[in-house]
Amino acid sequence: MELWFTEKQTDHVGITLKTQRTLMRQESQYQEVAVIDTKQFDRVLLLDGVIQTTIGDEFVYHEMIAHVPLNTHPNPRRVAVIGGGDGGSIREIVKHDSVEKAVLVEIDEQVIKASRQYLPELSSGLDDERVEVLITDGIAHIQASKNTYDVIIIDSTDPVGPAVGLFTEEFYGHVFEALTDEGIMVAQTESPFYEPELVHRTFSRISANFPITRLYLAHIPSYPSGMWSFTLGSKVCDPLAIDGNDLHALDTRYYTPDVHKAAFCLPKFVQKLVTP
Amino acid sequence: MELWFTEKQTDHVGITLKTQRTLMRQESQYQEVAVIDTKQFDRVLLLDGVIQTTIGDEFVYHEMIAHVPLNTHPNPRRVAVIGGGDGGSIREIVKHDSVEKAVLVEIDEQVIKASRQYLPELSSGLDDERVEVLITDGIAHIQASKNTYDVIIIDSTDPVGPAVGLFTEEFYGHVFEALTDEGIMVAQTESPFYEPELVHRTFSRISANFPITRLYLAHIPSYPSGMWSFTLGSKVCDPLAIDGNDLHALDTRYYTPDVHKAAFCLPKFVQKLVTP
Repeated sequence: MELWFTEKQTDHVGITLKTQRTLMRQESQYQEVAVIDTKQFDRVLLLDGVIQTTIGDEFVYHEMIAHVPLNTHPNPRRVAVIGGGDGGSIREIVKHDSVEKAVLVEIDEQVIKASRQYLPELSSGLDDERVEVLITDGIAHIQASKNTYDVIIIDSTDPVGPAVGLFTEEFYGHVFEALTDEGIMVAQTESPFYEPELVHRTFSRISANFPITRLYLAHIPSYPSGMWSFTLGSKVCDPLAIDGNDLHALDTRYYTPDVHKAAFCLPKFVQKLVTP
Repeated sequence: MELWFTEKQTDHVGITLKTQRTLMRQESQYQEVAVIDTKQFDRVLLLDGVIQTTIGDEFVYHEMIAHVPLNTHPNPRRVAVIGGGDGGSIREIVKHDSVEKAVLVEIDEQVIKASRQYLPELSSGLDDERVEVLITDGIAHIQASKNTYDVIIIDSTDPVGPAVGLFTEEFYGHVFEALTDEGIMVAQTESPFYEPELVHRTFSRISANFPITRLYLAHIPSYPSGMWSFTLGSKVCDPLAIDGNDLHALDTRYYTPDVHKAAFCLPKFVQKLVTP
């Protein structure tokens, strides 16, 4: 018997993965949480049937969402992750010696539990003593935090269901207020190939709040189109102005200082999406 | 009824595309040539069931395989494409005013016919008066050509069946001899994510023949993993040494001088594949 898991990434295209077995599948308060074992990507975390992260390529997403803002900020001490219950972003954040506190704000405790049990490569960072885990609504937490974080990482699911509120202009305004004077935010902002309107709209909403707003890209095979975007909003620091020599030597598999800069060199059709 | 075309890109992962209809499907002397109409990528050319190019994302592949070497060479006048019967690479090549002759060497005439009928957006370049179309074996043609071409583009299928000979060290040696003194070759060299050994091996074979060998990347959603590699071999000119200001203003959707340079900034795991 061959078992194949298929995710329809849009109404018209899907990815299909040969699957060894389903390791867990559970309805949480918010969504169906599942972990499957695949041949191509090893273990895969699914929320409502949508691939969130895989052992095979998670390093790209987590390194790029964490090290780009943390290496842009001159001295990131307090960092928050909204979503990201798998722990992969936190694992990368705590590689930075400057970080004194990393707060994970995840609404669904079942995601953390699933990751701790089946994805220890990702959740391991949660055991760092600088990490605080809050099981609560990220929107409320950010709204209640003023001048608190140096970096805020919005490591959300797709903008459907509970994550919709993480893609609004109002939310980005609260993120601005939750950040310190040199604060930086980054959000995962979907595929420019398959969701150009969304990329454009989200960029506009972030740039309505932040004086410096820049889009960058990474190759993530298990995500729709394989071309993934992140949008960075910054009060003062420009991610393009970093000096490669100053960057910390990090234990990475994708990120380098050169990759940091190259990620902001956008193909012409993507550049058009973020040009007013 | 919903019709879905699925390509197994490896034994363990596939892409699946909602399909409107099959426009053509024919056994040629070498392979099954088919064109299907899909919702996500518009028309798709398939050889033996493997996606070769799609109207939706072909611009990435063809711009990147053509403009990187042509903008690296100071004065490309004679250019050859081995394979590439769809005409997309030729279409980009003839955008360069310096080009006096562009030779398409395609072994399977049915591919050209299919493209002329169903993919006019790609085959249009074949009507340029500087273009010569040869229906013959690319390996033999290159072996018979000495000191002839300024740029040779190896726009091949995957290294199975007839294309195997286009991935050998011996062939790259003949390519070297077919090139003029400042000659440059580029080959499409598959996905570093799914075929790391092949990327490593092919890079080694090209660098065994060329003093300057460099790998570069592009985002191509319809290809396995979405991360595609090209390997450039050059006698004299370094693709990293280009001056962006000197580059011709080309009508492109992906390529820019900045993208040209950024494409050579390799993620750490890819860099390792091409480090001896």
